Amino acid sequence: MEIVNDEYYMQLALNLAGAASGQTGVNPVVGCVVVREGRIVGVGAHLKRGEGHAEVHALNMAGEQAKGATVYVTLEPCSHHGSTPPCCERLIAERVARVVVATEDPNPQVAGKGIARLREEGIEVEVGLLGEKSKALNEVFNHYMATGRPFVTLKTAMSLDGRIATRTGHSRWITGAAAREAVHTLRHQHAAIMVGSKTMLADDPELTTRLSVPGIHPTRIVIDSKLITPLSARVLNDAAPTIILTTEQADQVKLQQYSQSHIEVIRCGTGPHVDLKLAMVELGKRQINSVLLEGGGALNGAMIAAGLVDKVMLFYAPIIVGGDGAPAGFAFEGPEKMTDALKLLDVSIQSYGEDWCVTGYPNYRWKGES
Amino acid sequence: MEIVNDEYYMQLALNLAGAASGQTGVNPVVGCVVVREGRIVGVGAHLKRGEGHAEVHALNMAGEQAKGATVYVTLEPCSHHGSTPPCCERLIAERVARVVVATEDPNPQVAGKGIARLREEGIEVEVGLLGEKSKALNEVFNHYMATGRPFVTLKTAMSLDGRIATRTGHSRWITGAAAREAVHTLRHQHAAIMVGSKTMLADDPELTTRLSVPGIHPTRIVIDSKLITPLSARVLNDAAPTIILTTEQADQVKLQQYSQSHIEVIRCGTGPHVDLKLAMVELGKRQINSVLLEGGGALNGAMIAAGLVDKVMLFYAPIIVGGDGAPAGFAFEGPEKMTDALKLLDVSIQSYGEDWCVTGYPNYRWKGES
Repeated sequence: MEIVNDEYYMQLALNLAGAASGQTGVNPVVGCVVVREGRIVGVGAHLKRGEGHAEVHALNMAGEQAKGATVYVTLEPCSHHGSTPPCCERLIAERVARVVVATEDPNPQVAGKGIARLREEGIEVEVGLLGEKSKALNEVFNHYMATGRPFVTLKTAMSLDGRIATRTGHSRWITGAAAREAVHTLRHQHAAIMVGSKTMLADDPELTTRLSVPGIHPTRIVIDSKLITPLSARVLNDAAPTIILTTEQADQVKLQQYSQSHIEVIRCGTGPHVDLKLAMVELGKRQINSVLLEGGGALNGAMIAAGLVDKVMLFYAPIIVGGDGAPAGFAFEGPEKMTDALKLLDVSIQSYGEDWCVTGYPNYRWKGES
Repeated sequence: MEIVNDEYYMQLALNLAGAASGQTGVNPVVGCVVVREGRIVGVGAHLKRGEGHAEVHALNMAGEQAKGATVYVTLEPCSHHGSTPPCCERLIAERVARVVVATEDPNPQVAGKGIARLREEGIEVEVGLLGEKSKALNEVFNHYMATGRPFVTLKTAMSLDGRIATRTGHSRWITGAAAREAVHTLRHQHAAIMVGSKTMLADDPELTTRLSVPGIHPTRIVIDSKLITPLSARVLNDAAPTIILTTEQADQVKLQQYSQSHIEVIRCGTGPHVDLKLAMVELGKRQINSVLLEGGGALNGAMIAAGLVDKVMLFYAPIIVGGDGAPAGFAFEGPEKMTDALKLLDVSIQSYGEDWCVTGYPNYRWKGES
């Protein structure tokens, strides 16, 4: 049984925020609950960039009952004029009594100013309740705010012995329907999805979001150093925007063909392979704040080796494949010593039907015994 | 909170049985709890082959209070004269009122006869409470009883990408202290431990049980087709018995050297490699009812390919190793199609410190979509 207390209402605000994951663009997800005299009188979430903030929606619902109410909000109310007026001023105008905030806004334009402004007006403010949960919900926003590069989540489906295909290259399907539905949910929640040209040629995937309800399609990104993506590839259809990442060495004639098809081609680096770090910077400039990496072993390995993967989600089917040289999930040089292997932090495991997903965060700074 | 009911007492009996795992030889583990007028008046477990059964220990403790009591026992009381008199007759003599049995004894000498005998004497008998748990505790006993071959548990420690060593062969350590302690617990609970000669040469392991408390050392088994195990190998020391499995092609002079050192050498098959199926039959004849397979990728793969692995326990460290050709946990040919991969049943996951163990049962009969 859930006990009704501050946490109870903040958890509801977090649920509201989480539900909007993937639909706020480069904005954070935020939820808000307004409570007065033991009753919820307003709920809200930030639903779309450029539209109302969570507090505004919730206060609109509360109407005159906002006066004297407690407002639970997962992120510090903004204090600056963005595309909407500052939420602080609205809270003050409504004469709410108390505001409980899960985390400060890392946006340097806010960063504590919202909280200070509320206190200035005599509103009681508490900060930090379920703060870690709120930060986890906004890991993408926080990373993009800090680095300007997209937060990259590597997703792969493997057998228990780390294979992504059999020795013949056969790979459909490794995981079951529930895990695949989870992957489509990840697509819905990411700004972009990225594959290598090898996967693109082998599988001709459309890379769209296919759920039992309508989903949002991510921008499709193909790493294609040699521009071998055929104009007939499904990934270039008009279901969603597509970006091809290539190099300065790319053939000019081919380049023009893509441009005529409204496909953006970005040249990253002068070497034979796409400069992945530069590529992430370029995507960040285009307001792509999150990338779901569904590469094969080579691209996964290259992204890991470059330190560009921020989170891994490894789906395991309960199978053993064996097969000498059967493709592995991560093809990169790797360390000499086991103690120098790339360690994951905050590892958690979740089941999807018969399959399991191991989620963790690579710690590139970790070396040797901890 | 645990509710006091039949399950409560049976669970205690199961705990007693489980605690004796590994110390009853080819006998099953059995626990017993005697309850009278709301109080536990006796507890017992079968502790060692040839010594008292669980019921006898518990009834001895209960003394005269056994009269009219309820007896919870995890396995059907025996009805035959083995190395001890039949437990049925003792229960009848003590005039207990009711017996709750988790599972029937699969031993054809018992198989329901014990239950029938009790009922004949007017004792109330219930069968099946927590039966699946009792069967799981005796998976070794049940398998050995049915096949005469040891129950083989494959244990391996891998990175999340299925590597058991880096590209240079370095492997110490993959998992942390808690997982290694779990492995030593497995050694304690198995009649034998088995490795290939490659692992033996590479690591010169002693293959004993090392826990924070004294443990039982398993019989050590080396698969050594070419008899390359040096007489100085630690695995041949006198900490525990050792058996070398080789072939009819084995060099006679070398064979004699081992025999002089009181090492048993068993020749299995006439081919260049040890006939693994025959080897398991030979071990079974020697009353080795369980084998912990701690092979490298090659032996693991060969045992899997031969369908001789009954259970797998895959310990994963939260690390990614990569490395082209870095040794994999399972080296065998493997199927052409992903849908023909070896599927595990009854998969469960447990955490050990930062590591995780995936336990499952290979289903060799499974082919294609389920």
